[in-house]
Amino acid sequence: MGSLNSDDYQAPDIRSTNPLDSDEFRRQGHMIVDFLSNYYRNIEDYPVRSEVEPNYLSGALPGSAPNRPESIEAILEDIRKYVVPGLTHSQSPNLFGYYQANTSTAGILGDIICSGFNVMGMSWVTSPAATELENLVMDWLGEILKLPKPFLFSSGGGGIIHGNTGEALICTLTAARDKVLKEIGEEKFSQLVVYCSDQTHCSLEKVAHIVGIRARNIRKITTTKATHYGMCPDALRLAIASDIRAGLVPLYLCATVGTTPTCAVDPIEELCKVVEEFGMWIHVDAAYAGAACICPEYRYLIDGIESVNSFSFNAHKWFLSGLDCCCVWLKNPIVLTRSLSADASYLHGDTKEAVINYKDWQVSLSRRFRALRLWLVLRSHGVANLRKYIQSHVRLASIFEQLVAEDDRFEVFSKRRLALVCFRISPSALYKKQGETQRSGDDKAEAISTDDDTVNKVNEAFLQRINRTGRVFITHAVVEGTYVMRFAVGATLMEERHVRMAWKLVQHQADVILSEPI
Amino acid sequence: MGSLNSDDYQAPDIRSTNPLDSDEFRRQGHMIVDFLSNYYRNIEDYPVRSEVEPNYLSGALPGSAPNRPESIEAILEDIRKYVVPGLTHSQSPNLFGYYQANTSTAGILGDIICSGFNVMGMSWVTSPAATELENLVMDWLGEILKLPKPFLFSSGGGGIIHGNTGEALICTLTAARDKVLKEIGEEKFSQLVVYCSDQTHCSLEKVAHIVGIRARNIRKITTTKATHYGMCPDALRLAIASDIRAGLVPLYLCATVGTTPTCAVDPIEELCKVVEEFGMWIHVDAAYAGAACICPEYRYLIDGIESVNSFSFNAHKWFLSGLDCCCVWLKNPIVLTRSLSADASYLHGDTKEAVINYKDWQVSLSRRFRALRLWLVLRSHGVANLRKYIQSHVRLASIFEQLVAEDDRFEVFSKRRLALVCFRISPSALYKKQGETQRSGDDKAEAISTDDDTVNKVNEAFLQRINRTGRVFITHAVVEGTYVMRFAVGATLMEERHVRMAWKLVQHQADVILSEPI
Repeated sequence: MGSLNSDDYQAPDIRSTNPLDSDEFRRQGHMIVDFLSNYYRNIEDYPVRSEVEPNYLSGALPGSAPNRPESIEAILEDIRKYVVPGLTHSQSPNLFGYYQANTSTAGILGDIICSGFNVMGMSWVTSPAATELENLVMDWLGEILKLPKPFLFSSGGGGIIHGNTGEALICTLTAARDKVLKEIGEEKFSQLVVYCSDQTHCSLEKVAHIVGIRARNIRKITTTKATHYGMCPDALRLAIASDIRAGLVPLYLCATVGTTPTCAVDPIEELCKVVEEFGMWIHVDAAYAGAACICPEYRYLIDGIESVNSFSFNAHKWFLSGLDCCCVWLKNPIVLTRSLSADASYLHGDTKEAVINYKDWQVSLSRRFRALRLWLVLRSHGVANLRKYIQSHVRLASIFEQLVAEDDRFEVFSKRRLALVCFRISPSALYKKQGETQRSGDDKAEAISTDDDTVNKVNEAFLQRINRTGRVFITHAVVEGTYVMRFAVGATLMEERHVRMAWKLVQHQADVILSEPI
Repeated sequence: MGSLNSDDYQAPDIRSTNPLDSDEFRRQGHMIVDFLSNYYRNIEDYPVRSEVEPNYLSGALPGSAPNRPESIEAILEDIRKYVVPGLTHSQSPNLFGYYQANTSTAGILGDIICSGFNVMGMSWVTSPAATELENLVMDWLGEILKLPKPFLFSSGGGGIIHGNTGEALICTLTAARDKVLKEIGEEKFSQLVVYCSDQTHCSLEKVAHIVGIRARNIRKITTTKATHYGMCPDALRLAIASDIRAGLVPLYLCATVGTTPTCAVDPIEELCKVVEEFGMWIHVDAAYAGAACICPEYRYLIDGIESVNSFSFNAHKWFLSGLDCCCVWLKNPIVLTRSLSADASYLHGDTKEAVINYKDWQVSLSRRFRALRLWLVLRSHGVANLRKYIQSHVRLASIFEQLVAEDDRFEVFSKRRLALVCFRISPSALYKKQGETQRSGDDKAEAISTDDDTVNKVNEAFLQRINRTGRVFITHAVVEGTYVMRFAVGATLMEERHVRMAWKLVQHQADVILSEPI
């Protein structure tokens, strides 16, 4: 690899090739496809979570860009040598952490075509197909989810693919803010209040901050195990009433269907009834659980959706579509475009008819042709198989749940929803162990505490031990002060054997940790 | 294509395939690569700007998603039949509109690998390689641009790849806002003022609105032809002084290097001197022109950059990297992360050392592994060839400029910068034509106005006529009331023959339009 040296930047012997030569594209493209095919074939051979140390890359690669071209072969070799070991393999069937960002052949191919066309999708004129296929696919998906007609383009609503939930929240919150301030006056900006729960994704708080909602006006309703960590409508009612008494203005409610910590579900229908008299904007964030709503048996999770203003779900989580693909529907998109339209002479096409310009539905101007990905996913799999795929993951999670329940050293924490099982080593197992330790010890043995903090620490150490094996990667959450392990099924390649293997590993590590002193 | 029918969603005979089978991925992947290779081979055969009418797609494709899987062959056939005709071909060497969003084999391949790995890049732990390669490549690129050391990770600064300028602006503006409000108190929110020029990209105004800056506090400094539409430091000084007298608080200056309408350049060094005493945040948006700053002869465009807080350039415009790739550097990233950190138990890794978590540098949580694209572009081409490539485009634009200048029916409007030529049919040509019309007409011929409005209308009709040929696509801007055609060189595949062909077409259409009655 050459190093950057500005003195020879016009070295005359440098070959000047066409950077987009179709034959060379074909040759190199096939090479990359083969590389990825092999990657998928061998994906289980890698430690799931990367084992590198911070700053592993600095020093491994040159400190400056090369002055002369390097071959794709050399680059691929460096990817194998330096990049792959630094990956935490999102697509590994042994990754049970977070909610997965899963993809599929169809998702990847759709993205390859998107990258290949590389059209500017900001306005209708910059590629009518990009806009219209997105319109179409959002109506397709809305129909599969049985969204009420007012959310579909065909009935005056409409959808857009944002990059992520943060973008969906920033756009809808800005629209809600502007609408209310127009009614009550800009000077009341500082009185606007946003409602969510203590389980709502942290993006909401960040986004509210960005659009200028004061930190003290973000109301996180406390949830409890009694409602399986769903938002309690009465608690919301009390919070709103208190804010109104204090002269504040309720603006926006973010309800979640499938929270990140435990897949809790806020009861949309009841929450809508609470807020309806206040004219608040209601957004439903179903980033993870939305995918399951294509199955008739889980559609009830979004019952009441007809009363909300906007709804989002991330097809890049559990819908095989790859990052980044957050689907958002609105009943009244004009409220959005009123806030987010950007106009300039250089953007004017000469289309006389009214067309949709997605630049006016989002923060940024430029955008990728993301609809291709979703269109390929829907067509390559078909709706029936997509439902089966969701159902198969829920079944795998229920197997794991059963295994946990059958081992009295563990407990399932909170109700399992969909394909997420929250569990931990139970305090009673530690209590029993404590008893054994004391029995076997001499008289001087001090009482070992099995208070909450100790239970949490044992579980944390336990999870770290599991993850250090490299054979699985499970993540955690802290809910009401309790450290729980989150076992999420959702990787595309996951089969029953992966779940059973993970459970064996968990059991084995439990044997070890429970035989050591606390 | 089947239609959605929920009654048969569990039809038992549907084949259930592995959605990420490595052999099937290989087979279909090769097919897509070949498809794109052929697309590039034949890209000049298509009308540059799509010729479809609004709503062309509705009715052409089924109104519902298919219930059963469809083959990649069938999908590709529909792409050929319905998608390709709806594309405005961003990669066509005959697209001279906007600023191009260009890409290259390296850019596309980098993106394919990104889609294939599909890792979650939000935190260091979710894929150390995604974070560390981005650190590395931003330092590489910063060095090539000769950014002062404080912008590089190696010296306490750092960079991030955002999706687009809008995101760069929203993040830096929020950081600037929070920093100032912490000093002067939240209650002064409504007094914050953002400065730009009347040539600044419309994204700035949208973003300022989103973060809560009042519309009346966005100061667009008027520019004139005298400064080639660059922002005049004295005018900025007057505006700031006036705002301070009115009790307002100067917050943020967005200076542009290479504006969208005419590629005007705001004089960074002088503007910095004006604002230095007010402690304002200065952001430099070099979305388009930043790429040229890798050439020593254009680096002067960002002279003074050492005094600004943040700097962005879109590698997806003129740097072969494909959408979306906005590179942003900051001297003091901690100001950004103070505003944008999002924290939750479920995001905690067990790394003890301080690591960079890019989620705290941006709006959203999830992010793609965009650095791969830029890394492949830099390595596949090498810095020397990237410079040559920029230089070759500037040369092509200067050829076009010369051709315009030699035809007295046209005029070059404002100074050519880099690879953008703004031009129009000159008023004098129309005046001459008007004289001819009057001489050849009878006594009743009314005097035909060649006022500004008429000149604009003739140019607008002229450009529409050119674009309707489908052989080129040129866009326009309106500057100080003047309609100008913007001839941008910048597509990856562009050669001298394309520029000369475009000029012939322009001349031919001028022959026609100037022979018709005004």
